[in-house]
Amino acid sequence: MLNIGVIGFGYWGPNVVRNLTAIRETAVKMICDSQPVILKEARELYPHIRVCLDYKEVVTSPDIDAVAIVTPVSTHYQLAKQALENGKHIFVEKPFTRSIEEAEELIRLAEKNHLKIMVDHTFIFTGAVRKIKEVIDNNTLGDLYYYDSTRVSLGLYQHDVNVIWDLAPHDFSIIDYVIKNKPLALIAQGADHVGRGQENIAYITLYYDKKLIVHINVNWLSPVKVRHTLIGGKKKMLVWDDLEADEKIKIYDKGFIVENKEGIHHLRVDYRSGDMWSPRLEHEEALKRELKYFVHCIENDETPVNDGQAGLRVVKMLTLADLSLKNGGTLIKLQKNVEDELLASGADRNIP
Amino acid sequence: MLNIGVIGFGYWGPNVVRNLTAIRETAVKMICDSQPVILKEARELYPHIRVCLDYKEVVTSPDIDAVAIVTPVSTHYQLAKQALENGKHIFVEKPFTRSIEEAEELIRLAEKNHLKIMVDHTFIFTGAVRKIKEVIDNNTLGDLYYYDSTRVSLGLYQHDVNVIWDLAPHDFSIIDYVIKNKPLALIAQGADHVGRGQENIAYITLYYDKKLIVHINVNWLSPVKVRHTLIGGKKKMLVWDDLEADEKIKIYDKGFIVENKEGIHHLRVDYRSGDMWSPRLEHEEALKRELKYFVHCIENDETPVNDGQAGLRVVKMLTLADLSLKNGGTLIKLQKNVEDELLASGADRNIP
Amino acid sequence: MLNIGVIGFGYWGPNVVRNLTAIRETAVKMICDSQPVILKEARELYPHIRVCLDYKEVVTSPDIDAVAIVTPVSTHYQLAKQALENGKHIFVEKPFTRSIEEAEELIRLAEKNHLKIMVDHTFIFTGAVRKIKEVIDNNTLGDLYYYDSTRVSLGLYQHDVNVIWDLAPHDFSIIDYVIKNKPLALIAQGADHVGRGQENIAYITLYYDKKLIVHINVNWLSPVKVRHTLIGGKKKMLVWDDLEADEKIKIYDKGFIVENKEGIHHLRVDYRSGDMWSPRLEHEEALKRELKYFVHCIENDETPVNDGQAGLRVVKMLTLADLSLKNGGTLIKLQKNVEDELLASGADRNIP
Amino acid sequence: MLNIGVIGFGYWGPNVVRNLTAIRETAVKMICDSQPVILKEARELYPHIRVCLDYKEVVTSPDIDAVAIVTPVSTHYQLAKQALENGKHIFVEKPFTRSIEEAEELIRLAEKNHLKIMVDHTFIFTGAVRKIKEVIDNNTLGDLYYYDSTRVSLGLYQHDVNVIWDLAPHDFSIIDYVIKNKPLALIAQGADHVGRGQENIAYITLYYDKKLIVHINVNWLSPVKVRHTLIGGKKKMLVWDDLEADEKIKIYDKGFIVENKEGIHHLRVDYRSGDMWSPRLEHEEALKRELKYFVHCIENDETPVNDGQAGLRVVKMLTLADLSLKNGGTLIKLQKNVEDELLASGADRNIP
Repeated sequence: MLNIGVIGFGYWGPNVVRNLTAIRETAVKMICDSQPVILKEARELYPHIRVCLDYKEVVTSPDIDAVAIVTPVSTHYQLAKQALENGKHIFVEKPFTRSIEEAEELIRLAEKNHLKIMVDHTFIFTGAVRKIKEVIDNNTLGDLYYYDSTRVSLGLYQHDVNVIWDLAPHDFSIIDYVIKNKPLALIAQGADHVGRGQENIAYITLYYDKKLIVHINVNWLSPVKVRHTLIGGKKKMLVWDDLEADEKIKIYDKGFIVENKEGIHHLRVDYRSGDMWSPRLEHEEALKRELKYFVHCIENDETPVNDGQAGLRVVKMLTLADLSLKNGGTLIKLQKNVEDELLASGADRNIP
Repeated sequence: MLNIGVIGFGYWGPNVVRNLTAIRETAVKMICDSQPVILKEARELYPHIRVCLDYKEVVTSPDIDAVAIVTPVSTHYQLAKQALENGKHIFVEKPFTRSIEEAEELIRLAEKNHLKIMVDHTFIFTGAVRKIKEVIDNNTLGDLYYYDSTRVSLGLYQHDVNVIWDLAPHDFSIIDYVIKNKPLALIAQGADHVGRGQENIAYITLYYDKKLIVHINVNWLSPVKVRHTLIGGKKKMLVWDDLEADEKIKIYDKGFIVENKEGIHHLRVDYRSGDMWSPRLEHEEALKRELKYFVHCIENDETPVNDGQAGLRVVKMLTLADLSLKNGGTLIKLQKNVEDELLASGADRNIP
Repeated sequence: MLNIGVIGFGYWGPNVVRNLTAIRETAVKMICDSQPVILKEARELYPHIRVCLDYKEVVTSPDIDAVAIVTPVSTHYQLAKQALENGKHIFVEKPFTRSIEEAEELIRLAEKNHLKIMVDHTFIFTGAVRKIKEVIDNNTLGDLYYYDSTRVSLGLYQHDVNVIWDLAPHDFSIIDYVIKNKPLALIAQGADHVGRGQENIAYITLYYDKKLIVHINVNWLSPVKVRHTLIGGKKKMLVWDDLEADEKIKIYDKGFIVENKEGIHHLRVDYRSGDMWSPRLEHEEALKRELKYFVHCIENDETPVNDGQAGLRVVKMLTLADLSLKNGGTLIKLQKNVEDELLASGADRNIP
Repeated sequence: MLNIGVIGFGYWGPNVVRNLTAIRETAVKMICDSQPVILKEARELYPHIRVCLDYKEVVTSPDIDAVAIVTPVSTHYQLAKQALENGKHIFVEKPFTRSIEEAEELIRLAEKNHLKIMVDHTFIFTGAVRKIKEVIDNNTLGDLYYYDSTRVSLGLYQHDVNVIWDLAPHDFSIIDYVIKNKPLALIAQGADHVGRGQENIAYITLYYDKKLIVHINVNWLSPVKVRHTLIGGKKKMLVWDDLEADEKIKIYDKGFIVENKEGIHHLRVDYRSGDMWSPRLEHEEALKRELKYFVHCIENDETPVNDGQAGLRVVKMLTLADLSLKNGGTLIKLQKNVEDELLASGADRNIP
């Protein structure tokens, strides 16, 4: 039995508690939130679980094996550091930290103390993303040409981050998980309409070798919610509409064929158009699957796919995208030698 | 009665002829195409119209008052020049020309000979775009925050242009027509997967003053067709889905409100969410309305909204987007003093 | 504080408990289910609430003020009877009972003991149905012409009822709530493909005076889920798509106009086609609103709109539809004098 | 070369002429319409084709081999009779005739004179319906359980027919083509809101043996256009949404499995839910394919699938549906012995 303390019971925390409660091998022993009104709700929903206002009670409690940190990103480093120093494994809401340095320090600390870090990249545990990884890994799509994500809605302004830090972690963590190649360069555009220095619209482009291009459109100001990703491969193409109830993934037998007749200037391009196929997806709630995997990794001393390094890779991309944006859309080249180990993607490993 | 010769009977030419035939004040006197097999189709469909293989017959014919040039863009300049030199008004398929210089020379030639140029920016004659202009002009949307267009499909490779020159003329001509502000800078990213130096995917961002940002996503490699535009304003927001049969335009009473309490660091951002409204649109075929307007402008000696200058403005944006793309995504600043008259938008004028 | 015992913790019971838990004025004191494995889940989720296998403990407990009966319909009568006999108010899952006689007896028993019956017609507490009632009541739609509901999906076979008793209670309770007229006749068709005497497809038509016609299409064998209702009125028409996330209700300024020129044989029919409007709906969870209303009615001694009489009216329609179906689709006339008080709809009253 | 005269140039006639013009083996020699203003349009579009106001010129012209009758149904019999008496093959708009007797007489007349009748059941020539027939014929769907069609829109009132005669011919002709079984009984409900004795809403149910049930929902008063058909089979299920641009047909690997344990009272019903598959459909215009087939049947002396008998079967179903409706929804049994040859479906034959 793994005893867990949960810090943060705002938007996502209740989901973490609900799922942990439903997993046989874990018990939620403490819920902590700094706001009394929220803590009161927690107590009403879970009268049998101990609650507290001060996170120190959680990180120092001898009963607790692991801490779930479900708070605003600006607090992650402090809370995670103290949890690790007190010998607790940590499950940290995405994005992992506010800076590369913070992430690196937490990774070092966890390694030193032989503790696990899992960053809550929930999407890679959905049936949809697992299917996408499968059809990329087994070469159903063929060489990738592009990955184009639109993630827009009338969102809630975050007080401590811009739209990139709020929405793009989803895309960066998914790309990190499904694409084996490493980005060679990055560029971002955007706008801030509130005037607080926090962009509410951003467009990010990643360049890869072998012609792969990735584009991410994130927007807090859209009147309609769109969660639409196009993935084009040499052999097939895929559409992922996450708002569809039943047919989230559609795979099209479409593409083009280049016939090379007597050199580059005589290329003939033809289109192929065939059937479409929508595979059945696993239905288990992604967060539940992820939390079970957290327990599994601790109990079997395994390194999670979404470990501190994965969290760091996402933080690095957020940091660079933000940097490009603040500099008016400068292209940022990712030096191969330096970045190699840092930007290695998580795509060669599979969640069991 | 205005006598018209049509050059080019491939994809769009038959639509031009069909609509001209249905307008009382015009008569199609000649159809020209350099491919005999296409010319044969024209003759079968319109046995009473004279056909010819050589465009010179059209541009020099004394019977002809105006020439519709519906051919690939690389031929526009040559055909248009000769038509103007022979005293014919011209209706030219978009994009107007392959270069800024060509467009400027045709404009000068038309002015000198007192002839009209209309560039076939068909979209600005659709019920949808007319309604968008109306709700921007009458301040229903309020100050504009962003304009975000996705125009993707499994397209036909054009042999003489990339995806920007093929698809973005639609967006540039619409933006030119509905947005009064002038862009201050432009940047484009993209990729070429065929390896012929012609990009099949491109992302273009335009920066304006007053925080307006425009983004255009054009893609020839998408397995699904998307024609989706989001327009965010201070007061209301608009979604234009051109593939919807009946409700192409939806206007949302959504937005955000900034309360300024004691300075910028205490801004409070709240969301508004109200009703949605989908106005009835005019149903007349856009091309028919445009061609009637062409006749109207010639008969009344009026300058069309979509005149050579409008065509030039679009060519200029295409040229700059292409330049940015080829330079690996460089930001291109549009010098105010130089560009002022050139980039003045067409938005202060209305089609009757 | 109203103390409630909940009997049945299968599919819907957990929702009832979760919502009751979130209402300040109530406390769930006992959860009962006859299946030990389900009871175990209840105990894990709510360790502080007493659980029991035998419903008698609930209905006889002196601590309990009201009982929520969330079990298969065949058990409702027995459970409800004993609860009422023991002085408990009851909240009963729809459909109310298996027969008209059972419903009538429960109503008499409740009246005798001065207790409240609420039948869980959840849909009439949704933002969508409340808006539909509003636009019918305030004559936005004008005189009603038709109400056409399609409610199909790949459903779970119920072991004790056919598709009419499973899905049509939704439609009958909604119609009862929003339509003031009374049906004059009813007819039903259907088919049973399993061969157990329980139809999995049924089509029900209700005839009203003043030309109103109601049609209900229920199907357990559809590969796709559809929850689509069309309501046509003389002035406007309404579409309710309950699977839409944000625009469930759309109101169309469409209809037809009859011009009577020199008698019936010279009627001229013209169509009107105007704007569409999608009103913002209330977002509170329907079941929560309903349970609050249950508490309100008990505390203020008010008769709920969805009382035993409403439950009886729905049971009556289900019974007659089933009768018509079993008789091969016979038209059943509803005798005015006899049925008047029984089939009086609930539409003249409003939920506060 | 087959010389054709076309009578009727209103809504559908121009499509017939346009497609005939595009077929190499035919020539349209005459266009006839009794309204001068419509005839003028025909002359402007086709200045080289002879036009006339009086249909007698067409049916008696010695140049004409076949007559296409594209007029209101009330005129079909008279026009078709005279064409056949004058030795012309006929292509008749659906529905074939206003009565069973008329259809039977035309069939006899055509047989006597060795002439072909083709009834314009256009839908059976669409890629969608051809695919449906294919997956029923090759047993992909397995035994059919139900066929449920919704065909509603804000339609144009027809002055001579009700909604059944206007919209249901599509469904009856499709069912006749794809379903091998014969209906055993029929029942129809509906309403007339204009008060002219012509229903604008109707619901038709057909009973077959082997548990197959067919339901047709036709409505002229819907604010939205729906063309949605569900087909449930023992092995797979199919959805046909004719308003989808690219994925009109979706085939679902869904269904249910009945395990018979110890007799009927211990049946266990389980659901299967697998992948979905959307096959690519042929894209040729249905009317063009049909008219080519008309020429083919005449030139090769073949009997079309959509011959007079198919037209008669559809007229019979329309007549019986109307009869049931007018009698307040009476069930009409189709006597096996009498109806056998008349109601034999067209489903055992294939269009080449």
